[in-house]
Amino acid sequence: MEQSRPLDALNKARNKRVLLELKTGRQLIGTLNAFDIHINIVLTDAEEREGGEVKRKLGVVFIRGDTIILISPSE
Amino acid sequence: MEQSRPLDALNKARNKRVLLELKTGRQLIGTLNAFDIHINIVLTDAEEREGGEVKRKLGVVFIRGDTIILISPSE
Amino acid sequence: MEQSRPLDALNKARNKRVLLELKTGRQLIGTLNAFDIHINIVLTDAEEREGGEVKRKLGVVFIRGDTIILISPSE
Amino acid sequence: MEQSRPLDALNKARNKRVLLELKTGRQLIGTLNAFDIHINIVLTDAEEREGGEVKRKLGVVFIRGDTIILISPSE
Amino acid sequence: MEQSRPLDALNKARNKRVLLELKTGRQLIGTLNAFDIHINIVLTDAEEREGGEVKRKLGVVFIRGDTIILISPSE
Amino acid sequence: MEQSRPLDALNKARNKRVLLELKTGRQLIGTLNAFDIHINIVLTDAEEREGGEVKRKLGVVFIRGDTIILISPSE
Amino acid sequence: MEQSRPLDALNKARNKRVLLELKTGRQLIGTLNAFDIHINIVLTDAEEREGGEVKRKLGVVFIRGDTIILISPSE
Repeated sequence: MEQSRPLDALNKARNKRVLLELKTGRQLIGTLNAFDIHINIVLTDAEEREGGEVKRKLGVVFIRGDTIILISPSE
Repeated sequence: MEQSRPLDALNKARNKRVLLELKTGRQLIGTLNAFDIHINIVLTDAEEREGGEVKRKLGVVFIRGDTIILISPSE
Repeated sequence: MEQSRPLDALNKARNKRVLLELKTGRQLIGTLNAFDIHINIVLTDAEEREGGEVKRKLGVVFIRGDTIILISPSE
Repeated sequence: MEQSRPLDALNKARNKRVLLELKTGRQLIGTLNAFDIHINIVLTDAEEREGGEVKRKLGVVFIRGDTIILISPSE
Repeated sequence: MEQSRPLDALNKARNKRVLLELKTGRQLIGTLNAFDIHINIVLTDAEEREGGEVKRKLGVVFIRGDTIILISPSE
Repeated sequence: MEQSRPLDALNKARNKRVLLELKTGRQLIGTLNAFDIHINIVLTDAEEREGGEVKRKLGVVFIRGDTIILISPSE
Repeated sequence: MEQSRPLDALNKARNKRVLLELKTGRQLIGTLNAFDIHINIVLTDAEEREGGEVKRKLGVVFIRGDTIILISPSE
């Protein structure tokens, strides 16, 4: 049985809503549109949240991989 | 169907107004003139904003990729 | 006798519960689903802990390798 | 039509006065003499500014690329 | 006479007790089980110490190389 | 006409007195003895300065490139 | 005449007492036993100093290159 690799999890999350946490402490939520091996990410319909509240709408946003802590499909 | 990659989103934003957020907490707005795989960016007609106000005009500006958090086409 | 390499220890921990400590000081606990040479990690059934208490449930989570300090199988 | 790359903007600024902003918060102004793909920069007739005032004269100065935030031709 | 390289010192410390100091200021003590060229380390029977006291037992632990300051065989 | 590269400026400064500023805020002054593409530097007759005063004599000193902000021939 | 490279200075210091200053502000003194192109260092008979006083004895110690600011043969 072939063992799964980390990018498989991102691939499964494509076109789904995901939560991104950044090294600055920010939370972004959006639809995972694209990613690469540097973990550069493009979200669509993205918004920034703070304490569960929408802080601002970002629409399409490119996030540089080295600023990301974690990515979690929001269930 | 071919899956989109993060740089495709930057390519679509070429010659359009974009918002850049830097690790220093600054916001730059300008026309996306050029980018590369390091996410080095050139903006034209750029300005720095603070709390929605123009803080200063920068004109043409080269931004080193490793200082960038996110890039979002301003709608 | 062949000498063991660091990734062998991660391989043995696959599908087991592990503790992750991040540079931000956070603790994540989850089932080790996948890892790569950058130490990018995917956990399933993950939760964040603080002072031994579950702070929040994360489910599936991708963690970027460069944010990780240590990984320890929880016994 | 060929699309411009970020280093083209630096190339156009060669032998012209540019503003450099560093991660330490400093501002250097000088004539752009040389640059490379790491964005290592050499300025001539350089000076450090603080609040619009010349703080000190540096003459020729080599700046390591990874300390640079942005480079802007001063108009 | 062949000159020694830094990894030779780690190789000699294999299966011996070593002290690790991390960039976060923490001290880990354990048996050096494995290392690689990135200085990723696996310790067994590891414990975290603070002021000479055992703070907690970690058992097997993988430590990402870029978080390490120094490694010293404990005598 | 061939365009100059950043390392040309360091090459011209070889065997001359240079000022180094480090990311820690320190200033070193010494004779530029050697450099490489990582901007690792060796100074001879080096001293550390603080507020224009010699703080200590270092003699020969190797400085790791990634700790350097700028290098300027002292005139 | 061949120009000297930074690692030549480390090579000359082999088996001699050197001072290491780390990004954490610490000072280590020891006999330079080994180094590599990442400036990973092994010292023997090493000790940590603070304000000119020996703070603790370390014996053999491996120091990861990216934590080092400077290395100076102690005269």
